[in-house]
Amino acid sequence: MVSPQASPSDAMELLRRGASEILVEDELIKRLGEGRPLRVKAGFDPTAPDLHLGHTVLINKMRQFQLLGHEVVFLIGDFTGMIGDPTGKNATRPPLTREEVQENARTYQEQIYKILDPEKTRIAFNSEWMSKMDAAGLIQLAAKHTVARMLERDDFHRRHSEGRPIAIHEFLYPLVQGYDSVALRADVELGGTDQKFNLLVGRQLQEHYGQPPQVVLTMPLLEGLDGVQKMSKSLGNYIGITEAPDQMFGKIMSISDELMWRYFELLSFRDAREIEKFRREVEEGTNPRDIKFMLGMEIVDRFHGSGAGARARDEFIARFSENAMPKDMPEVTLDAGTEGLGLALLLKQAGLVSSTSEGIRMVAQGGVRVDGERAADPRQVVPAGTTAVFQVGKRKFARVTVK
Amino acid sequence: MVSPQASPSDAMELLRRGASEILVEDELIKRLGEGRPLRVKAGFDPTAPDLHLGHTVLINKMRQFQLLGHEVVFLIGDFTGMIGDPTGKNATRPPLTREEVQENARTYQEQIYKILDPEKTRIAFNSEWMSKMDAAGLIQLAAKHTVARMLERDDFHRRHSEGRPIAIHEFLYPLVQGYDSVALRADVELGGTDQKFNLLVGRQLQEHYGQPPQVVLTMPLLEGLDGVQKMSKSLGNYIGITEAPDQMFGKIMSISDELMWRYFELLSFRDAREIEKFRREVEEGTNPRDIKFMLGMEIVDRFHGSGAGARARDEFIARFSENAMPKDMPEVTLDAGTEGLGLALLLKQAGLVSSTSEGIRMVAQGGVRVDGERAADPRQVVPAGTTAVFQVGKRKFARVTVK
Repeated sequence: MVSPQASPSDAMELLRRGASEILVEDELIKRLGEGRPLRVKAGFDPTAPDLHLGHTVLINKMRQFQLLGHEVVFLIGDFTGMIGDPTGKNATRPPLTREEVQENARTYQEQIYKILDPEKTRIAFNSEWMSKMDAAGLIQLAAKHTVARMLERDDFHRRHSEGRPIAIHEFLYPLVQGYDSVALRADVELGGTDQKFNLLVGRQLQEHYGQPPQVVLTMPLLEGLDGVQKMSKSLGNYIGITEAPDQMFGKIMSISDELMWRYFELLSFRDAREIEKFRREVEEGTNPRDIKFMLGMEIVDRFHGSGAGARARDEFIARFSENAMPKDMPEVTLDAGTEGLGLALLLKQAGLVSSTSEGIRMVAQGGVRVDGERAADPRQVVPAGTTAVFQVGKRKFARVTVK
Repeated sequence: MVSPQASPSDAMELLRRGASEILVEDELIKRLGEGRPLRVKAGFDPTAPDLHLGHTVLINKMRQFQLLGHEVVFLIGDFTGMIGDPTGKNATRPPLTREEVQENARTYQEQIYKILDPEKTRIAFNSEWMSKMDAAGLIQLAAKHTVARMLERDDFHRRHSEGRPIAIHEFLYPLVQGYDSVALRADVELGGTDQKFNLLVGRQLQEHYGQPPQVVLTMPLLEGLDGVQKMSKSLGNYIGITEAPDQMFGKIMSISDELMWRYFELLSFRDAREIEKFRREVEEGTNPRDIKFMLGMEIVDRFHGSGAGARARDEFIARFSENAMPKDMPEVTLDAGTEGLGLALLLKQAGLVSSTSEGIRMVAQGGVRVDGERAADPRQVVPAGTTAVFQVGKRKFARVTVK
């Protein structure tokens, strides 16, 4: 399907998949036609990695380049990480030691080698060349870019026009990142759409240093479980790649049918034609849940080993199968009031517990599930418009609609 | 008159003389009261020095600090000079070699030791600390200042608002200059009023590095011979400190009586009370020319040794004394036409030569003087409104008014 002998146009078809922008596409086609392994760079933060599926969008694209026979450089930007926050304002960002950087690199490797081929991946640290650069070298680097162009970067522009301070070293970091491309002689740099400005700085600097400018390929930021905001730990809408198989599978099953196709495009290693076939099957009546099973199993297998996906699916089905649920599950409709219904009160009103305090206790003991997911917070508010199966202990079920 | 034992208030009186601003004056008084030698820094360009009296305004202020017993640091900013123009746009600004910097430093010394005491002057090069700084150090330095504050500097502000490019390294140079104050632990930094912004950066950086901030003392930019624009080689209104005694003296005699007082304030080493006395004498009828003689002699003595001033004055008088000039010098009034009168034609019309070609020849041979100054250009245009004594050879004189 994919091989180092792929023609440039076959390769392009794969590389375009899910990509937000390729600058400049013709240059990439030309380089793919040169028949040599291209050097493909992607930069990563040196702080403790705790990757979620959002991060893997980029790593999956690296994998595609690797499958096409190209050299993938996983670049850890440790140089600036070891400087820490030089403004001294952010006490929570102390400088990393060399040992911490090495430890973080090992953690990265454990995670990314679930996706990338360790034999074909080069882990690089930009301190390798940046710690050798002296102040004069950095001044010469800084001479290659203007203040006005730097202020065009979205976040700088916004802060500057709002009168919020930008420390001058913040103008140097994109230059350091760009210089990494010079030092590596990168052919291609991958990054999220939010990195586009910095990736273009790399192009410009390479030209200044007499190198052909790298091709810039940006990937979209993956939407989180809500299908709206980007996946992020702080928003709670994420799937961590070290999460337990059942949890991971359950979360994937919770996404909307529409978001499922997005996840297929950006997260699945299946051929685009195969995904197209799934789409047609759903249009022709296949239950989307069954297709979502395929996605969930693939992802769980990837991070927990072959077979883990099928076991997670079986467990999921067992929890929700009609056999496990009483046929005569009561259907209850409750009034949400103006502010939604607290979980413990809902359980009482649905007749699953005898009092809200019992409800609270049952949740605290881990004995309450909502659509098969264990509930953690008895004060959780269930909003109007919800329909879900509420379960207390092993035997008490009710399908509740909150209006 | 001035001594290391001067009281802070006596010292302040001297240091305030001619100064444009002292930031912060109370801090300077406090430090003067500490009874230790203060470290007084002034920065100079590392390119080939060709000093004129305008430059000496600052050096004279350094001398005052020296007389008060303080340590004077003549700082040559060779670090950035050895980088050259890193944009590569300015082919006329190649990087200086270490040998060129040393050679320029020697030339500086020859010139400044006419004013400063070599025994009490420290010549420093900022490459001493800056060449040891690595890129990480410069990033930490850059973190201590914001883009918005840097854009407040007059020239940056103008260029930015006019859409003219500012290369990012230009933001680093004021930080390097400021860091020099940190490295030197400067108590005071002197500079022209045009340097105020950079001197204040030094204050801020010292605070960031936990040092008491230096006092900033700015000196005005000396007006040139025209009394209007600042003295500058490119405007031609300057007196170079290596000019010949007669030339130097003659140029000083050519300044207006009003400008004379400004030059006394900024260039003379005489006590302020003595200068005040001169002023009163002129008000009471003394010929300002005689006071200007005192200024001219002092300056010529300074740069050509004791006695050179008196000789230059005698020569000047000899040229212009009534004895040397014929009593019956013809008075001639000529018509300037619309564009003034060419010198050679003027000489012919005044009857001093028989033809314009003779006039051209006499000027070329150095035989023509205008108010005692040798004329160099026969095509020089004498504008309407001029009254001057024109002389050809030793004996031919005419007082010519051009209308």
